Amino acid sequence: MTKVNGFILNAQKLLSSRARTLNPSAIREIFKYTGVGGIISLAGGYPDPNLFPYDKVKESVNAALDKYGPKMLQYSSTQGVPEFLDYLRWFMREREGCHHCDEEALMVVSASQQALSLLAQVLIDPGDIVIVEEPTYVGGLVAFRAMQARFVGVPLDEDGIRIDILEQKLRKHRAKGDPVKAIYTIPTFHNPAGYTMSIDRRRRLVELAQEYNVLIIEDDPYGYLVYEGERPPTVKSFDTGAVVIYLTTFSKTLIPGYRLGFAVGHPDIIRKMVVAKQAADLCTSAFVQYATLEYMQRGYFDEHIAKLREAYGQKLQAMLQSLEHHFSDIEGVVWSKPKGGFFVWMTLPEWVDTYEMFKYAVDAGVVYVYGSAFYPYPELGKRNTLRLNFSLPTPEQIEEGIKRLRQAYERYKADKGR
Amino acid sequence: MTKVNGFILNAQKLLSSRARTLNPSAIREIFKYTGVGGIISLAGGYPDPNLFPYDKVKESVNAALDKYGPKMLQYSSTQGVPEFLDYLRWFMREREGCHHCDEEALMVVSASQQALSLLAQVLIDPGDIVIVEEPTYVGGLVAFRAMQARFVGVPLDEDGIRIDILEQKLRKHRAKGDPVKAIYTIPTFHNPAGYTMSIDRRRRLVELAQEYNVLIIEDDPYGYLVYEGERPPTVKSFDTGAVVIYLTTFSKTLIPGYRLGFAVGHPDIIRKMVVAKQAADLCTSAFVQYATLEYMQRGYFDEHIAKLREAYGQKLQAMLQSLEHHFSDIEGVVWSKPKGGFFVWMTLPEWVDTYEMFKYAVDAGVVYVYGSAFYPYPELGKRNTLRLNFSLPTPEQIEEGIKRLRQAYERYKADKGR
Repeated sequence: MTKVNGFILNAQKLLSSRARTLNPSAIREIFKYTGVGGIISLAGGYPDPNLFPYDKVKESVNAALDKYGPKMLQYSSTQGVPEFLDYLRWFMREREGCHHCDEEALMVVSASQQALSLLAQVLIDPGDIVIVEEPTYVGGLVAFRAMQARFVGVPLDEDGIRIDILEQKLRKHRAKGDPVKAIYTIPTFHNPAGYTMSIDRRRRLVELAQEYNVLIIEDDPYGYLVYEGERPPTVKSFDTGAVVIYLTTFSKTLIPGYRLGFAVGHPDIIRKMVVAKQAADLCTSAFVQYATLEYMQRGYFDEHIAKLREAYGQKLQAMLQSLEHHFSDIEGVVWSKPKGGFFVWMTLPEWVDTYEMFKYAVDAGVVYVYGSAFYPYPELGKRNTLRLNFSLPTPEQIEEGIKRLRQAYERYKADKGR
Repeated sequence: MTKVNGFILNAQKLLSSRARTLNPSAIREIFKYTGVGGIISLAGGYPDPNLFPYDKVKESVNAALDKYGPKMLQYSSTQGVPEFLDYLRWFMREREGCHHCDEEALMVVSASQQALSLLAQVLIDPGDIVIVEEPTYVGGLVAFRAMQARFVGVPLDEDGIRIDILEQKLRKHRAKGDPVKAIYTIPTFHNPAGYTMSIDRRRRLVELAQEYNVLIIEDDPYGYLVYEGERPPTVKSFDTGAVVIYLTTFSKTLIPGYRLGFAVGHPDIIRKMVVAKQAADLCTSAFVQYATLEYMQRGYFDEHIAKLREAYGQKLQAMLQSLEHHFSDIEGVVWSKPKGGFFVWMTLPEWVDTYEMFKYAVDAGVVYVYGSAFYPYPELGKRNTLRLNFSLPTPEQIEEGIKRLRQAYERYKADKGR
């Protein structure tokens, strides 16, 4: 028999058209430089493992095992274990003030990425439209792209999504009869942009979604990680018509290693997501659900958040000061000034291509993610942008990293004859 | 604004065509009787929580936390944490004798159901064919159906899939130019049928897959749970051309609560599955991977399997003896005599419809799963079949349950005027 790539099976002939478009994300390529000797990574989006509530995780796992016994080791219902679902409903009502959430449905997911994947499955036929912010979270794009969605981008400014442009686009696509299924937004401490949507725009967004019968997918991984002022109210808190599916994850507020989050919203949609989850992975780990329940009931969630705010707040300050120090003299360079989250978004002069500049950064010993990766159609993205992460590096690494970024910029500029 | 189902959003208008076909499985309906006072469930497929290695899980979780520290709480790479991947490669080579597995690719999944879902995504365009055993595992059907596969069924006998009929069907569909992508098989201690594929058929299956360039998906959750004789060699062990993707899960051999399994096979397919997993849930819990690694390295896997074989073997004997006792006098009643796994498959006289008989069973205080649920097109399934589970009930409950099943049969028979 003839062999293909060293094997008898010709696997290429068996792949679906979806699989042919599934390629490793551009961001993954960058990560091969992470951990390479001497290179400072401002690229990833990992929380700082030194800040993990290691002892309290250990304590709550053991306490949960004592309290719940073997049922912590058994299959869970697809929607979630009953005690954790009850707790999360209480949490949404009493902590988040989402009283109408009680009439809606709530499900546990294996972190937010799974919720995005399930939403893509239950909403998207090939060619259906999802409105996304430009820039937006790569994992959102990946999930919707896997179901062959088309994207319509709406730019951001410092107050979040440009609601005037959103309205124009909704009107235009309604006039054309296009199937606009959802608006995907990260309203608070945006990844990658660091911006936070204003209260007025949150209200108006809900009105528009009602008027155009479009689902809002509110992705809120960072809402609790606020370093200046108060946590803004969620878009969900303005929603009395079940137009918002609210997603959050414990990956940033507790640990990513559990793979745990939840979704709340319109029962007709959550119910379909539950059925899709049966096919996707049957259920989320009961072990992880009970361990997290115990952790929260012991009051560790708030205690730990306070600690994270303090530590990440200092890192954010280090980054903003370093940028001020190393970049404030260059005309046309701006960066976002987030009040929470993990990321700062930087815009360099128009002539810069941060994808081109990337190898200069590697040579200077620092990596970032080039901005085009965060656009639904990267070739149409703003090529003079980049994302900087401040959650993982130390304040000293941040200062040194930004200094190196300036060096890279200077060498790139010289080579470009600028 | 008008409201639909009590909400402003008209969610029905936003669902994908896929979502419209996603409905809770028939089996789920049965489970509402589980735990109802006095009803004995022979329906589910849960392992016995009294047999969970509770103390050893607790011990290995704590030992792993001590050994691996915060990296147990961090994100994992999508393919799996490196130490666990290395261990599983060793396991496949040294324990399973799969030396060619080293040239192939291996990935961690959030239990086998996720592997099935990822395979469906990377193989199936709407209308593509998956060959399945009749009957087969419902979760497999659900995963492939979610990607709009067409099914071609091949019947089983006591030696597993009818290889002669499989060959006819492969020939027929090749002649028609139909896109046959995969053969989905549970060769060892089949769910729901309890049968085990003969060695000769395993060899021949691999030859046919090579000849027709079709992927074999070998689902092996029960292989280690052998109660009589030796564990048969996997189909994978006969595969030197990478035509088999081998899937297994720790749900039955350790605990379901971890949601952990792995897949090994052709690198072109596993690599696409890894990309699909990025979109599906980013990664499997590092916590669970390190805890399982520690559990296995401490030698608890084999020790626990020995205990399970003993205990489940007794339950199987209880079921076979009860069936002999209560049903051997009825002409046309047969049942499988499995040597491992969780299930016995029962065939009643031709005139019986086990779906119709189900309410008589509930009245008599016992539940089972009617056989038609395990057919790709239930309306074409054998209506006189049912599945009995012996892993969860006690030997006493099994005896009482089978006795009640006979009572249900008698009342049903009387009402049918037989």
